[in-house]
Amino acid sequence: MITLAVDCMGGDAGPRVTLPACKKFLDAHPDARLLVVGQPEALQSFQHERATLVAASEVVTMDDPVEVALRKKKDSSMRVAISQVKEGAAQVAVSAGNTGALMAIARYLLKTLEGIDRPAIATQIPHAKGGATTVLDLGANVDCTAEHLVQFAVMGSALVSALQEKENPSVGLLNIGEEAIKGSEVIKRAGELLRAAGQSGYLNFQGNVEGNDIFKGTVDIVTCDGFVGNVALKASEGVASMITGGLKQEFKRNLFTKLAAAVAYPVLARLMKRMDHRRYNGAALLGLRGLVFKSHGSADVVAYEHALNRAYDAARNDLLGRVQTKIQTAAPLLMPADSPAVAATVTSSI
Amino acid sequence: MITLAVDCMGGDAGPRVTLPACKKFLDAHPDARLLVVGQPEALQSFQHERATLVAASEVVTMDDPVEVALRKKKDSSMRVAISQVKEGAAQVAVSAGNTGALMAIARYLLKTLEGIDRPAIATQIPHAKGGATTVLDLGANVDCTAEHLVQFAVMGSALVSALQEKENPSVGLLNIGEEAIKGSEVIKRAGELLRAAGQSGYLNFQGNVEGNDIFKGTVDIVTCDGFVGNVALKASEGVASMITGGLKQEFKRNLFTKLAAAVAYPVLARLMKRMDHRRYNGAALLGLRGLVFKSHGSADVVAYEHALNRAYDAARNDLLGRVQTKIQTAAPLLMPADSPAVAATVTSSI
Repeated sequence: MITLAVDCMGGDAGPRVTLPACKKFLDAHPDARLLVVGQPEALQSFQHERATLVAASEVVTMDDPVEVALRKKKDSSMRVAISQVKEGAAQVAVSAGNTGALMAIARYLLKTLEGIDRPAIATQIPHAKGGATTVLDLGANVDCTAEHLVQFAVMGSALVSALQEKENPSVGLLNIGEEAIKGSEVIKRAGELLRAAGQSGYLNFQGNVEGNDIFKGTVDIVTCDGFVGNVALKASEGVASMITGGLKQEFKRNLFTKLAAAVAYPVLARLMKRMDHRRYNGAALLGLRGLVFKSHGSADVVAYEHALNRAYDAARNDLLGRVQTKIQTAAPLLMPADSPAVAATVTSSI
Repeated sequence: MITLAVDCMGGDAGPRVTLPACKKFLDAHPDARLLVVGQPEALQSFQHERATLVAASEVVTMDDPVEVALRKKKDSSMRVAISQVKEGAAQVAVSAGNTGALMAIARYLLKTLEGIDRPAIATQIPHAKGGATTVLDLGANVDCTAEHLVQFAVMGSALVSALQEKENPSVGLLNIGEEAIKGSEVIKRAGELLRAAGQSGYLNFQGNVEGNDIFKGTVDIVTCDGFVGNVALKASEGVASMITGGLKQEFKRNLFTKLAAAVAYPVLARLMKRMDHRRYNGAALLGLRGLVFKSHGSADVVAYEHALNRAYDAARNDLLGRVQTKIQTAAPLLMPADSPAVAATVTSSI
């Protein structure tokens, strides 16, 4: 039996999306149980033999500063859901709430794993070959050292092995050129460490990759600073919505184009389905002593159900154990990033 | 009369693309002259009353390391073209060659402007409103200080005022959230400096923007570190080609989809034209004591002609003078980024 603790209040639509998704998820997974966390009056309509209501009196809003979420709202649905994981009542928590608050609360309650300085956020991005590239970090860490980038690579490898059942997934370092001499000092040093890890067999490192490789599907995992990852992801979303918005506009232009749209619709729908990012909803918070998954705040029922599926798969395939094993195996690589030798390297990179 | 020095050997296709583009450009601009630079045997077929052949015996290849381009190939078409600007024989140089080599040679020959620590590469990216966002830096500078980001904003403002005839273009700072507290220490400090510049009227600063804002057209100019700018640009190109590649694949699937493609073609062609990045070919190297434009290496004749048009517009609208005036006006903001006070700020950000 796998138990998920679900923050049913989080996300733009709250229980209107989370509850129907929970229902579908439970129907599809006979070996799953849910702890449905939130304000009882909002959740009381939800009844399922494998669901238990866990009351939480407060809700973290999208605009709440991290400090408010962490220090004031101690009975928030987000926090109570994560507490279930801490206390062992659930194997994984899921929330569509405020990312900054979720990471802060998760880090505070669960603590980071030994060998990891900073937890990271990893998500899958669909690529042209039909699969998805796992990218991390996506915004939890804005000033990364070379060692952090190696830690992300190790955690990303564990994630892909757990969710996609690939034993030795390939890793690329996001850079501005394929050549090893490209990039900042931090990136060059990360490249050296990753090459060493590849040679020792700790990681399947394939070298530098560029922004477009995320969408080509060149490697399974792309490791990058959270600032760069976040900008790349949002820029990509921007292009995609510009193109789909433009398509809609052009097809609505006049009677002829509307007819053309009707004819082209099945073809376009097939493409949209193939590239539907909802299928990849559910980002993992990695590097913590417990599993937490983040759904897009704007997720609909389909997308939210996918986030629940991913969290379930991660728990069932022992993501936490895999991350820990990977970290232990790769321990020689994961020296603390704040050691004096490393600090010196970083300072000299400016 | 505006004179452009054109490195006709640069780019993936060399003279096969550059010469027909030069011909079209000259026919469209009766007040323009070209210095057609390259190996005489490759260019001798080109005849035009307003074109002069300038011989250069060597060619910088796409794979040449910067040092080779700079120190060994002293008679390269790229270098000879830039020399024409230095000597006053041309107002602007254009090349589709190796970007790293172009920047290094341009910097070596032309030197940077007073008040600018590092030249930057700026390009226009089409946005959903039908115009284009000017983004810089795109890869010349991978470890930027807050002051560099301000310098980019100043140079970008001069570029937009010269090319788009907007007197007070708006500037955004690329970040991972709109709130001023987001981002690394360098970014936060850049935000403070830019806000101060906005309050003093030196710049029309609109605050932080995110990756998707580039494609929404939220501001005229987006300033960012070259690493982030390069990754965002390439990631965006990656999404765009994934979507267009997917469309082609789906439309080719069977007889019905091929028919649908025939019906939808005029609509799709209109969209493609609207978003055609060739119209925006021609990145400016800013911050030098002379004008240099860079075309995409893979440019076709249409794209290359656009790069020539942009270089011509920049020269005609006195981009160099505008950059210099902007820098002088904003001098109080542009204190050298390597001063001890700044270095301390930067070090503490790690």
